[in-house]
Amino acid sequence: MEPGEIRYWVLDVDGTLTDGGIYYDNAGNEMKKFNAKDGAGIKIVHIAGMKVIVLTGRQCEATKRRMEELQVDFLFQNVKNKAEFLKSFFVDKDISADETGYIGDDLNDLSSMKLVGFSACPADACEEVRRCAHYVSPLNGGCGAVREIIEYVLKQSGEWERIIQKIC
Amino acid sequence: MEPGEIRYWVLDVDGTLTDGGIYYDNAGNEMKKFNAKDGAGIKIVHIAGMKVIVLTGRQCEATKRRMEELQVDFLFQNVKNKAEFLKSFFVDKDISADETGYIGDDLNDLSSMKLVGFSACPADACEEVRRCAHYVSPLNGGCGAVREIIEYVLKQSGEWERIIQKIC
Amino acid sequence: MEPGEIRYWVLDVDGTLTDGGIYYDNAGNEMKKFNAKDGAGIKIVHIAGMKVIVLTGRQCEATKRRMEELQVDFLFQNVKNKAEFLKSFFVDKDISADETGYIGDDLNDLSSMKLVGFSACPADACEEVRRCAHYVSPLNGGCGAVREIIEYVLKQSGEWERIIQKIC
Amino acid sequence: MEPGEIRYWVLDVDGTLTDGGIYYDNAGNEMKKFNAKDGAGIKIVHIAGMKVIVLTGRQCEATKRRMEELQVDFLFQNVKNKAEFLKSFFVDKDISADETGYIGDDLNDLSSMKLVGFSACPADACEEVRRCAHYVSPLNGGCGAVREIIEYVLKQSGEWERIIQKIC
Repeated sequence: MEPGEIRYWVLDVDGTLTDGGIYYDNAGNEMKKFNAKDGAGIKIVHIAGMKVIVLTGRQCEATKRRMEELQVDFLFQNVKNKAEFLKSFFVDKDISADETGYIGDDLNDLSSMKLVGFSACPADACEEVRRCAHYVSPLNGGCGAVREIIEYVLKQSGEWERIIQKIC
Repeated sequence: MEPGEIRYWVLDVDGTLTDGGIYYDNAGNEMKKFNAKDGAGIKIVHIAGMKVIVLTGRQCEATKRRMEELQVDFLFQNVKNKAEFLKSFFVDKDISADETGYIGDDLNDLSSMKLVGFSACPADACEEVRRCAHYVSPLNGGCGAVREIIEYVLKQSGEWERIIQKIC
Repeated sequence: MEPGEIRYWVLDVDGTLTDGGIYYDNAGNEMKKFNAKDGAGIKIVHIAGMKVIVLTGRQCEATKRRMEELQVDFLFQNVKNKAEFLKSFFVDKDISADETGYIGDDLNDLSSMKLVGFSACPADACEEVRRCAHYVSPLNGGCGAVREIIEYVLKQSGEWERIIQKIC
Repeated sequence: MEPGEIRYWVLDVDGTLTDGGIYYDNAGNEMKKFNAKDGAGIKIVHIAGMKVIVLTGRQCEATKRRMEELQVDFLFQNVKNKAEFLKSFFVDKDISADETGYIGDDLNDLSSMKLVGFSACPADACEEVRRCAHYVSPLNGGCGAVREIIEYVLKQSGEWERIIQKIC
């Protein structure tokens, strides 16, 4: 598959859209640190006519709020087996796994990465994920790795210049 | 233009005065992490007789509070097209774009950077911004890049020693 | 002792499961930043049939909540002399210090590290701890060092492949 | 002056005991991130029979709470001219500036650093401070620089081994 043929991006949250930081306070509140450049990356995905599916094994209101703000097309939290979930989802929505890109960083992302047409990960993903991925970003999770991967793919497919002109 | 002729500084927020971190919690609260050295940099700008305009595409109470504390001269949030906004603002206030410096880090800063007399960015700005900027700080956004850029310009123009003596 | 013979892991909190960051706000609340990869590491420990004891000199609700979520087997906070505490605990539970691994980062961990069969620390542990440890992780505290150490031990003992297959 | 003759440590807060991060949220709350290793460093100062004075130009409840927890001997916030303040304080308490160490990171610390017997700074202090300091820590502010500097001084004076034995 060529990167230019991606129509859907599946994104993990902890360690991918964040640096893996799970902030807890004494009052039972949880915080997450997202990155503005990844946010801009998701806007670029939409401008390029692709859709975004965010998939996480945890459940967090902060994730919901940030993803709604970024208008991601689908958000699924508390998903225990991501690959099984994606297989059903692809059938339901008549999506081909081949036209899907997946970005994740840890062992529970591995099966999904093997399922799709293109897989990528942050620089600080675990060893097995780095070895499995088609592309490893030079940036760490939460530091703009998702945006960098999306840019990389759009540059590979020659679409980047067209999109830049729409934005700037 | 010579850096010494700058009378106005336009500063982006996310990725420039911060490391791009967007902290959300489960209760709907948002947090931003500013940097004490950038704060001191804005005081130095004022001591040098220049003015500060902070311009951001997002809207955040935390930004408002920090910028009021630092007594920035103008704060504009929720600005969708920064270059168009600045053109009007410059006309309104009779400011010359040539005597203006701009510090930003992402694609939505590019048009503004091309507009002004001097443009600069943090080390971790996106590729297009780094290529466009007159000066790239060795420091990342949120780690004192704004302060470093201001110091660099004042050293170039020979004003730094005079200002240091006022402070120390 | 061989790493493969470890049946219990004793983990320090500040500087080991975190980067040492103690976040205080103006309202008397405290926050800690844990790491998702360390969380996955604790799940791996359980899959491998080992138990986890978390031991800290401080007292923090956030630690309690995160450790309950990760279902650690024992959590002891506010422990002033860790080595004395562990000696009693080992007697009570009929645990051999030899079959115990310890991960810590600072001077108050040293006596405990000398007590157990296998000791390890993050890359940014204090000098005395780094010199004392059987293994120094290439990762800093709060950046996945605990997970990396657990992986290292399971790879040394040849159990890693079996566990990976259970997860993926 | 020899480092071993220090009896008082004066510590700056932002950029020295923290990485300079000023966290603001939308509800008017402020947060600071202190470091557990610096906390242990302050305990070591006390074990060595020295006293700690914390001096900051800002005002923050979080600083008050953390410094009370660490039982620092004096905390002064909202101090606009640190050198003038210290001169008066030294006279009042009959402290010799020569037997005082100062750790700071920015321009408003410079005059105080020139006042005392021994001055030091984190690796990421501003250029003028780094040039002025007797010792520059290899660690950044908020990452254990204060602790590292205290250790360095106690090792220089030959007191470190005695203190380690009291702790471990």
